[in-house]
Amino acid sequence: MLNFSYKNPTKLVFGKDTISSLGSNIKSDSIDKVLLLYGKGSIFKNGVYDLVTESLKNNNIEFIELSGVKPNPVLSKVKEGIDIVKNNNLKAIIAVGGGSVIDSAKAISAGSCYEGNVWDLFEGNGKLTKALPIFTVLTLSATGSEMNCGGVITNEDEGKKWSFGSPLLYPRVSILDPSIQSTLPTKQTVNGAVDTITHVFEAYFGGTKNTDMVDELSEGIIRTVIKHSKILINDSNNYNSRCELSFAATLALNGLNGLGRLGDWSSHSIEHSLSVLNDISHGAGLAIIMPAWMKYVYKEDICKFAKMGRNIFNINECDDEKAALSAIEALKNYYKEIGAPTTLKEVGVSFKDLDFVADNAAMSAPLGTFKKLNREDIYKILQIAFE
Amino acid sequence: MLNFSYKNPTKLVFGKDTISSLGSNIKSDSIDKVLLLYGKGSIFKNGVYDLVTESLKNNNIEFIELSGVKPNPVLSKVKEGIDIVKNNNLKAIIAVGGGSVIDSAKAISAGSCYEGNVWDLFEGNGKLTKALPIFTVLTLSATGSEMNCGGVITNEDEGKKWSFGSPLLYPRVSILDPSIQSTLPTKQTVNGAVDTITHVFEAYFGGTKNTDMVDELSEGIIRTVIKHSKILINDSNNYNSRCELSFAATLALNGLNGLGRLGDWSSHSIEHSLSVLNDISHGAGLAIIMPAWMKYVYKEDICKFAKMGRNIFNINECDDEKAALSAIEALKNYYKEIGAPTTLKEVGVSFKDLDFVADNAAMSAPLGTFKKLNREDIYKILQIAFE
Repeated sequence: MLNFSYKNPTKLVFGKDTISSLGSNIKSDSIDKVLLLYGKGSIFKNGVYDLVTESLKNNNIEFIELSGVKPNPVLSKVKEGIDIVKNNNLKAIIAVGGGSVIDSAKAISAGSCYEGNVWDLFEGNGKLTKALPIFTVLTLSATGSEMNCGGVITNEDEGKKWSFGSPLLYPRVSILDPSIQSTLPTKQTVNGAVDTITHVFEAYFGGTKNTDMVDELSEGIIRTVIKHSKILINDSNNYNSRCELSFAATLALNGLNGLGRLGDWSSHSIEHSLSVLNDISHGAGLAIIMPAWMKYVYKEDICKFAKMGRNIFNINECDDEKAALSAIEALKNYYKEIGAPTTLKEVGVSFKDLDFVADNAAMSAPLGTFKKLNREDIYKILQIAFE
Repeated sequence: MLNFSYKNPTKLVFGKDTISSLGSNIKSDSIDKVLLLYGKGSIFKNGVYDLVTESLKNNNIEFIELSGVKPNPVLSKVKEGIDIVKNNNLKAIIAVGGGSVIDSAKAISAGSCYEGNVWDLFEGNGKLTKALPIFTVLTLSATGSEMNCGGVITNEDEGKKWSFGSPLLYPRVSILDPSIQSTLPTKQTVNGAVDTITHVFEAYFGGTKNTDMVDELSEGIIRTVIKHSKILINDSNNYNSRCELSFAATLALNGLNGLGRLGDWSSHSIEHSLSVLNDISHGAGLAIIMPAWMKYVYKEDICKFAKMGRNIFNINECDDEKAALSAIEALKNYYKEIGAPTTLKEVGVSFKDLDFVADNAAMSAPLGTFKKLNREDIYKILQIAFE
């Protein structure tokens, strides 16, 4: 296990009928004027918009709205938000939505307190010394952004989907009422499950030995996601399963699962480049990329993949390599069972596009820690993922 | 799963050679004069005293020492600490030791900012509105006090060993270097393992259904503790196992394992009364009491005990009741294997003492949530625990 330092100050408010506590949580921080950020119209259909605005009004909190955050959130919308915040002297950002809205809120929070171009922070230039408080109401469990301090934004002009982070960007309070996710399209529940599992595996295969306690947490999160995602694709209203899936998604990326190990994150990098190409949803892209990555790298640590097979997929096989290969197959089969895509071909990527994706991902090469990947490796993984 | 609200602001600094960061962590909070609290002499033998004081001096932090905190920490020492803090206008408490020192630090922190008698806060009278910052250097992983906001103190005059807590009492920073625990007597490592396991079970059998994700965390913590405590009783210097056991102990009671469920805590209450009688170490008392509690209550939810057997002790038994009983037996056998006592007789309690313990515990009756216990139930559990 590696040395680590961990501090996560986000207050997580979890459960049914908790959204109405938003206003009082903001008010107790003496904040009276905020940006209310959301995506498309789903929060009007599921009643969340009404709950949020009523709670703000009840606590005399003024708000200016900015809607239209896209699933792969873009820099231009972030800049629009920063302008509104600065022009109106707003004191906090309220993100109502999934990871794309929360990530945008983080970038707006940072950019509103940063003198230069907010993209500097993604490029590793510029230093963030303060940020506006962020409050979130989560409507789709997937990215874990509700309880961490990072985010991913696409710079449309430069064709870069990059991440950034700062301890200043932990949400002050995140409200997670799993019951409101019962109206999600199945596809989004599935994508959330895949995203969660991939977050866990990025750390699990993080190239660090002797990590029993976090491995236990990792395996437990994934078993929970597998069990309850299978229930939810047939019974979207199952509140218990919504709770389990939501809580698992938050735990997958609130930092705990990464403690004491390096993390790999090359599947995420490759997927980000894939979504620059065709705006594929993040979860769908990960369902395709990560099993291909696994097939390409498993020989670096066959034992760990065999452990994954035995502990997560109940594979009863003494030979480590057979167990490892069966584990990867079991993951793909589970993705197929819940309706996630498992090949690039299925989502409309053509073979000649692989070069673009490999070039884009190789901008940050070498990727990963489990096996360091250069452009050639990335291309081979994309070939495996193709069909 | 029940609704919950969770916020844990403690910064955990974990790993080898991290103690020297104490001073800079305190200094960054602009604190220059502190109480340095510890127990007996062990921190002189293992070098921790030198590391701590050197780090304080290097950062120009003045300190006044108070030593002699006992394993079952007492109110008189807490009051001594409060007087020193008030008379010298100290700005923070530095706890160097195990749970007893950290719990005392919490009580001193609270009492230094509270006008009345600090014991009011244990009795549920009086309201804490501020507290002094607490920094800890953990030397014995067991109670989890390094990353939570509660504590237990014995009021010697009134014969009460009671708990208290406040969100104001989370340590600001806790430093956990597992390598310094290699010189612990085996008995203390064993007691720490038992304490950790009991914390987990108190929540696991918390009388709440549909808690898959936290059950996974619970079972993972206990499997980790069992595996690595067995290694450590033969190889006290094993750094990896020290890391796993330490990290597991922190996770067992930093709040996560209790999320979404009620918790029972009657074994802890009964043990506290036992230690009022004969100053038994907390872990040893729990190793005796909890399996007896399990035998007395398992019929309330046989399935949950069968789950414990199958998932933690690998019990391959279809019949739920047989699996449940085997699970309790397996826990006792594990305690015997690592050298923990499993009967009251072994630790010098006589049969006639059971009345005193039952009376003392019944002061807070009814205990628990899994099965509500009154004096008669408590006495029966003590009878089971006797031999």
